[in-house]
Amino acid sequence: MNILLVFAHPEPRSLNGALRDIAVKELEAQGHEVRVSDLYAMHWKSEIDRADFPALAPDERLKVWRASTEGFAAKTLTEDVRAEQEKLLWADVLILQFPLWWFTMPAILKGWVERVYASGFAYGVGEHSDKRWGDRYGEGKLAGKRAMLIVTAGGWEEHYSARGINGPIDDLLFPINHGILYYPGYDVLPPFVVYKVDRLDEAGFETVAEHLRERMRTLATTAPIPYRRQNGGDYLIPSMQLRPDLGDPEATGFAVHLKDASTAG
Amino acid sequence: MNILLVFAHPEPRSLNGALRDIAVKELEAQGHEVRVSDLYAMHWKSEIDRADFPALAPDERLKVWRASTEGFAAKTLTEDVRAEQEKLLWADVLILQFPLWWFTMPAILKGWVERVYASGFAYGVGEHSDKRWGDRYGEGKLAGKRAMLIVTAGGWEEHYSARGINGPIDDLLFPINHGILYYPGYDVLPPFVVYKVDRLDEAGFETVAEHLRERMRTLATTAPIPYRRQNGGDYLIPSMQLRPDLGDPEATGFAVHLKDASTAG
Repeated sequence: MNILLVFAHPEPRSLNGALRDIAVKELEAQGHEVRVSDLYAMHWKSEIDRADFPALAPDERLKVWRASTEGFAAKTLTEDVRAEQEKLLWADVLILQFPLWWFTMPAILKGWVERVYASGFAYGVGEHSDKRWGDRYGEGKLAGKRAMLIVTAGGWEEHYSARGINGPIDDLLFPINHGILYYPGYDVLPPFVVYKVDRLDEAGFETVAEHLRERMRTLATTAPIPYRRQNGGDYLIPSMQLRPDLGDPEATGFAVHLKDASTAG
Repeated sequence: MNILLVFAHPEPRSLNGALRDIAVKELEAQGHEVRVSDLYAMHWKSEIDRADFPALAPDERLKVWRASTEGFAAKTLTEDVRAEQEKLLWADVLILQFPLWWFTMPAILKGWVERVYASGFAYGVGEHSDKRWGDRYGEGKLAGKRAMLIVTAGGWEEHYSARGINGPIDDLLFPINHGILYYPGYDVLPPFVVYKVDRLDEAGFETVAEHLRERMRTLATTAPIPYRRQNGGDYLIPSMQLRPDLGDPEATGFAVHLKDASTAG
């Protein structure tokens, strides 16, 4: 398979750097072709702004979605953005690797999403009707591909548990897994998360490394997170609310968007 | 009061620009002193990297929290970062205003958090013992101050409702409200969220503007979101899990971190 790893850490000699090298080595040993977008090393531009839309007239008001729609359609987006879009089309699997900073991805990676996820490419795709609300959440240009996160956290696993003070890790990562990866069509694998990274000793590191190798060996076979497809009948259109007869009718929050065994959803 | 509004939109002629002007005008009319950090206009540097730590030796491995701890203590952080820290200490109320892009804040604002929230300033504060786990989540250098979000979203309010496909807006904003604002001590007011912003007509805009003015008039009196204080006895230390006898013992997810009427928490 073709694999794109987008890496967002400023220090190559970090734990993240070591884990990236382990992942790449294992993937190549399995015969995959791997490309790495090392955002800090590439001096990736983090902010989306007028400079992203060279075709926009200097005095024209910037509406990001409109400029993005037009720029993507006319192939006038900047070279760095188009190169990343090509990589996404090339890759069968996308891996985003980053340290959890303030409970989400680093700014530089968020800026990669904002700039590379153009309108007409990752959103604003497909028709809107009473049966469909665009091609998103399980459909879209990146459907049929897989994606997963590799995340390091300084805090303890308990602090990110179901009743931990930081909030459950699955809920903290939902806006990324569901809102950024599932949205344009990816099947999203469970994340690989390492905790207490500042206290990892050599034996701990080797355990982590072996788990990561195992995840890299099972990229094609690991079951994705069973998010519900938007246009599969589970959601009312256009309110995009989960049908009241699906799941626990009292249930709310991110978890309702997972299929469960008790429903046909 | 002193009010700092951090603004993260690339286009002054946007709805966000108009709402910012309305907020500032109303606050000034109430006699408050207002400062605005307009991140795009300031050409704010979004990425945290080696350049943030001028005292770091060129060949030294960058560990962000260690470099941040040392740089903050020695006052060697960069001028732009120290200026923002001064503004945070000056302000009685912090307002973060941004468009919701990919279900969270824009990269440029995330980078403001990463760079300004130094170790020893916004995290890594206070002692760790069997009674305390640092001064955070309701305590810290910014305790006693208030904060709130002003957010615009392209999507419909229903899509962000309890069972809406994007996830409930309160859950999407939890990592910011709880993880970024409550963490260093702010009392966090309910967010001001505007939906369907690309379809707002003149009458709709005037309604939104009037609600925003009302929120600006009630900054000092609006009840904060009742998050539980970390060191107030509700959490086990060091696992930082909510005590099993508090709230619904089966309840999980972000909402357990709100005090409820049925418990002493």
